Amino acid sequence: MKKADAGTMLHPEEILHLSQDHPKKARKHINTIHPDELATLLLNCKESQRPSLLLLIPSHKLGDTLLELPESLQEDMLATLPPEAVGDILEHLNSDDAADLLQSVDKQIRPLIIAKLAPDERRGVEFLLAYGEETAGGLMQAELFKVRHDWDIDRVLTVLRRWGHSIENLNYVYVVDQQDIFIGVFTLQTLLMHKPSTCVANIADRRFPRATPKQDQEDVVRMFDKYEVLALPVVDENGILIGRITADDILDVVQEEATEGMYRLAALSDNDDLAEPVMLTARRRGVWLGVNLLTAILASWVVSQYAATIEQIIALAILMPIVASMGGIAGTQTLTVIVRGIALGRVTFTNARRALIREVLVGLVSGIIFATLIGGITMLWFPENGMVLGLIIATAMLINLIMAGLAGALIPLTLQRINIDPALASGTILTTITDVVGFCSFLGLATYFLYTPSVGVN
Amino acid sequence: MKKADAGTMLHPEEILHLSQDHPKKARKHINTIHPDELATLLLNCKESQRPSLLLLIPSHKLGDTLLELPESLQEDMLATLPPEAVGDILEHLNSDDAADLLQSVDKQIRPLIIAKLAPDERRGVEFLLAYGEETAGGLMQAELFKVRHDWDIDRVLTVLRRWGHSIENLNYVYVVDQQDIFIGVFTLQTLLMHKPSTCVANIADRRFPRATPKQDQEDVVRMFDKYEVLALPVVDENGILIGRITADDILDVVQEEATEGMYRLAALSDNDDLAEPVMLTARRRGVWLGVNLLTAILASWVVSQYAATIEQIIALAILMPIVASMGGIAGTQTLTVIVRGIALGRVTFTNARRALIREVLVGLVSGIIFATLIGGITMLWFPENGMVLGLIIATAMLINLIMAGLAGALIPLTLQRINIDPALASGTILTTITDVVGFCSFLGLATYFLYTPSVGVN
Repeated sequence: MKKADAGTMLHPEEILHLSQDHPKKARKHINTIHPDELATLLLNCKESQRPSLLLLIPSHKLGDTLLELPESLQEDMLATLPPEAVGDILEHLNSDDAADLLQSVDKQIRPLIIAKLAPDERRGVEFLLAYGEETAGGLMQAELFKVRHDWDIDRVLTVLRRWGHSIENLNYVYVVDQQDIFIGVFTLQTLLMHKPSTCVANIADRRFPRATPKQDQEDVVRMFDKYEVLALPVVDENGILIGRITADDILDVVQEEATEGMYRLAALSDNDDLAEPVMLTARRRGVWLGVNLLTAILASWVVSQYAATIEQIIALAILMPIVASMGGIAGTQTLTVIVRGIALGRVTFTNARRALIREVLVGLVSGIIFATLIGGITMLWFPENGMVLGLIIATAMLINLIMAGLAGALIPLTLQRINIDPALASGTILTTITDVVGFCSFLGLATYFLYTPSVGVN
Repeated sequence: MKKADAGTMLHPEEILHLSQDHPKKARKHINTIHPDELATLLLNCKESQRPSLLLLIPSHKLGDTLLELPESLQEDMLATLPPEAVGDILEHLNSDDAADLLQSVDKQIRPLIIAKLAPDERRGVEFLLAYGEETAGGLMQAELFKVRHDWDIDRVLTVLRRWGHSIENLNYVYVVDQQDIFIGVFTLQTLLMHKPSTCVANIADRRFPRATPKQDQEDVVRMFDKYEVLALPVVDENGILIGRITADDILDVVQEEATEGMYRLAALSDNDDLAEPVMLTARRRGVWLGVNLLTAILASWVVSQYAATIEQIIALAILMPIVASMGGIAGTQTLTVIVRGIALGRVTFTNARRALIREVLVGLVSGIIFATLIGGITMLWFPENGMVLGLIIATAMLINLIMAGLAGALIPLTLQRINIDPALASGTILTTITDVVGFCSFLGLATYFLYTPSVGVN
């Protein structure tokens, strides 16, 4: 697929060059390119070429193209367009996509654009904008095919033939009563299986799962996962059908949530993006690097408390990074498994305690193995003091790997319990703990068993 | 949703207790539980309770339940069942799910089970087993609704009413010629829009995207993302339609790939799971901890080369973890962005060089900021030698943060170019580099500028 496209698609330079002499040809070429590839084109071209390329993309494709771009770039590009042009783009989109794109428009300009939309488009978008971006309400679209519960299939077919063109991915027919109260769902497949005289109330699946507008999008993903449906109706607190969420939007949400999870574990902000200006990225990442600088200084301060011991036994300075490093890796392993388990709904309140105990036990087993290994290596590496030094580093390693399992599980479980995203900041807190515990136990034990205070000096 | 279920579902103990006195009641209760919750029940119960619970689940629900479990547990549970029982479970599943579940059965027992399947179920499963688990062929199911290109809609409707029951999520009708060569696709929606006398060849979308059986599953996900379809036909090298992939399976793949990506970055094996025995987990993770032990020893060996300098200036031992830690975090940030960018198709051969330059520039900017900060802090913290020490640690920090950007981008891009999963081992290689570069630059500069060899001693 990708290869076939790449072969026929011109480079940004070529397109811009073509547009100078043959603007019609350039537009025609752009019209053959999929919005997904147009987005890649905009991402990969030089920053200075973007505004000119943007003007060549027809408005019925521009919306889908912009939606494929990272949000920061969406904002930049939309800011270069006049409100009328943005309105034009929105008219070509489904209500959910239009609302999403509007989120990227400067707040002060938003009302100007909304005011220029066609009345029912405007109502739809204003309604959707009221819901948080990461909720079921923010994901849903108003466009769906609903029928009254007292209709028969024949009537459904008549209406469908008349209006069905305007709805994409029409798979489910939604059944409501006179007050728009949601009753149930049936598929086109079911529709075709029954006689034209059948009343829709009799074929509607009344136990079909449904989302509520304020439900978190992670929750909605879990419902799609569980029920294996292609779309979910969204029903408000009064039971009124207000929209539907389709499976193709869920795919985007899953990717987004996964990226968010990974980024948070790696001390990155959710918005970090390769298309951003370097200075902005440096600032975003700098926040977390700053936090890490503070925690690293804390760990160094711990080391400084044992300066006299290190001065006497220089092997300690050489060996201490090993204890800290192993704790960091083991802790990150536990942390990642628990954070991902929470995100996928595998780790719950019910089994949290068991998961914690399990991770501590894994820490104990790895602790015993790697304590033995590093103890042996130390005895061979530093023949002087070797026996005691080996025992000390082995004990410190054991303590730190158990601690890594404990902290790696306890931090995300605690954050989860107090309703903070478990991935947030976990990595930085964790390595601070494994560094401090690693240095303290190793240098502390060494001070206790090996340090001989020099009397009378000074 | 979840809450409503939890309220009505009994605990594993209660179910087992009920089954002793009233086996019928216990089965009836289990029959009301969704496979997804049955899987959670099996995950959370005591290991000793699992076999008895398994026997209570009816075979038409057992397949879907087992498929929700992590693979290691699937294998364990299937091993406790006789081949006939497994055959019974498979008969209730679609061909793709049956093939997936069979992958978890011991290789030696597999033929026994397959031999006992109904003839066309057997053919379907054997055909699908031939494809790799992570390819389009491994994802597809044989069940689909196909029609000949010379049929009219009336005939399609007749056949659909007769056979349509047996196919889940029937949204697209696939059009083939006499030789089963794939021609195109139309939706039930389109079908309903046209007259019964219309020939299907005239309403089929001939440019509908299609997958090939050997295509990697990540590629298939990208196609779903790009074309926003609910199912993709799979067409072999001769153009013959051999199956379809539905959007609900893609959701699982996306979750799986995301977990894999996260796990690899955190030095975890893909199969790491909270339901596994502690010893197995310890062994899996031990492999990566072992690799890390070796690289940590390498870093320590680097430190040992500067033992004499550290002995003279003990502040070096205190400060050196800061340089290494900052490099590790900054490198992980870059690594995560690049690995995720590759996975999402955002970082390609075309823009790899630009991404690399960008990350080095981010490293340079953060380097300048944090070099200044740590330089200042060091001057205040260690008044003795402060000026020179501050300049040395600032230079080392700058070098290490630039290096972090360079290595964080270069490692995954190189692995990608030689067709190795970019996430694999990247984290461990990266921190080795930032540790070694951090220690070398800091201790090396200190040795050059501050170390005075003691003459005549020894």
